Amino acid sequence: MKIQKIVIVGGTHGNECTGPYLLNLLKDRVAVSNYSTFELSFFLSNPKAYENNVRFVDDDLNRSFLNEDLSNYALDSYEANRAKVINQVLGPKENSKTDLIIDIHSTTANMGVSIILVNDNVFNLQLASYMKFKIPNVFVYYIPPGAYTSNNDHPFLNSLAKYGFALELGPIPNGVVRHDILVQAYDATLACLEFIEKKNKGLDVNFEDEIEVYEHVKTVEFPLDSDGKINAIIHKNIQDMDYKPLEKGALIFEKLDGKAVVNHEDEIFFPVFINEAAYYYKNIAFSLTRKKKIKTVKE
Amino acid sequence: MKIQKIVIVGGTHGNECTGPYLLNLLKDRVAVSNYSTFELSFFLSNPKAYENNVRFVDDDLNRSFLNEDLSNYALDSYEANRAKVINQVLGPKENSKTDLIIDIHSTTANMGVSIILVNDNVFNLQLASYMKFKIPNVFVYYIPPGAYTSNNDHPFLNSLAKYGFALELGPIPNGVVRHDILVQAYDATLACLEFIEKKNKGLDVNFEDEIEVYEHVKTVEFPLDSDGKINAIIHKNIQDMDYKPLEKGALIFEKLDGKAVVNHEDEIFFPVFINEAAYYYKNIAFSLTRKKKIKTVKE
Repeated sequence: MKIQKIVIVGGTHGNECTGPYLLNLLKDRVAVSNYSTFELSFFLSNPKAYENNVRFVDDDLNRSFLNEDLSNYALDSYEANRAKVINQVLGPKENSKTDLIIDIHSTTANMGVSIILVNDNVFNLQLASYMKFKIPNVFVYYIPPGAYTSNNDHPFLNSLAKYGFALELGPIPNGVVRHDILVQAYDATLACLEFIEKKNKGLDVNFEDEIEVYEHVKTVEFPLDSDGKINAIIHKNIQDMDYKPLEKGALIFEKLDGKAVVNHEDEIFFPVFINEAAYYYKNIAFSLTRKKKIKTVKE
Repeated sequence: MKIQKIVIVGGTHGNECTGPYLLNLLKDRVAVSNYSTFELSFFLSNPKAYENNVRFVDDDLNRSFLNEDLSNYALDSYEANRAKVINQVLGPKENSKTDLIIDIHSTTANMGVSIILVNDNVFNLQLASYMKFKIPNVFVYYIPPGAYTSNNDHPFLNSLAKYGFALELGPIPNGVVRHDILVQAYDATLACLEFIEKKNKGLDVNFEDEIEVYEHVKTVEFPLDSDGKINAIIHKNIQDMDYKPLEKGALIFEKLDGKAVVNHEDEIFFPVFINEAAYYYKNIAFSLTRKKKIKTVKE
């Protein structure tokens, strides 16, 4: 298996400015001819949202790539149309002309450099393992198929290609570019390209036999008042504690009236996307993951 | 002089969520009857922007309070109208029924708890000095009249009342509430109310004879490309270095092509609002201030 076509994507969420800036940086600094074994290109996925510095215009583009939605021409929002166009340009999904997509995102949560995988094929796991060698503060967040729908599909842009991942960088506010975060995005992207160039050439690449991943379990909502409005905040004890174990009895929210809300989960989960700005409108406070090891080689 | 009417304002910028949440918290926890010497009320200033989680709907409300704009009925944006209504409710400017306004803001910059003064009358300076006693990490940022117009006026909501300040809290992304920042806002507000209650009762209050302030000098723009688009980022050396001295020769930007931009100011200024998300659309990278001491007592 050889990776022949790679696309770096930015601006899927228009107010996550690291991605679009990284695309310009890569165009300026990375000679595409540096790589002899694959074709490399860059793609600004939601230019209208980026221009307006908003996450999306009508709908979340990164929830618009379910097969049933891509084939549903009754859906007519800006992003529903844009997703179909992107599916033509980068896809088509299931039979894609693009072998590998890196989709650059950012988060207000303290998630370091997170590789978000939407499948657990061994190539992706080896790539992730290699990146953990090369870059500090890398976590692998695995979202199994079916986490968002009942039919084992994924709504993410990354699901257009068999290989690759979303790169999630944080903490950073929306609407700004930070030098430190940009360097992390740049280094992570180049580590990925380096891995593929070596692999394609049949050279030895470093990766571990198994890799630690945080597998998505469920989302947790903020407490709501009788009108359905959020009436609590993330407790200071768990703010910025992404990927840290959440013990039973830990304080997770402080309600408006001063009362704390306690974690009642028996299993020790690992929260991510804690206090992500983009999820407030869905009342989501954080997600819970299960830490586990997965083999990076076929048995 | 006695302060009789105090209004705590939040949501002047609709995506700075600390203010509106603080208003609800104060309503829930602070018995207005705790204070015997003044009337205390709470005011959500831009409900439409808050509902939509945007800084403003049409125009920046906190730049809409110039006298000439308040009397210009040709201005018809949502915020231009809203400013006139707020001027009726809290003002009128120059002859206000409100003695003191605290307007709660937040910033993506690392500005701690900043008291933004739009005049340097001794009462405000004493109040600020008292707050520096009571709260850690307090800075006083003084914007002299005329910084924004040629006629010594101020466009800020705070200019409706003779006393008070904008409270600027950060760093925090837009669209989120953080427990730690909320506690700072709460403590700062209560320290202010405590000072006024004591002053009104003629009790002794602690303040220094002089206070350190950072006086606004000018704003600094990002480098732009030939199309007028930002093509640089804040250099990592000055990111988060708000209120720190900026030496001549310091690296302030890194351009897309990798070249650094150097600070050429002969005077050592102190930057604030470094990498504030809300100022990108105006191409503003940071503001420069001059550190100085001002007497808090009349000579």
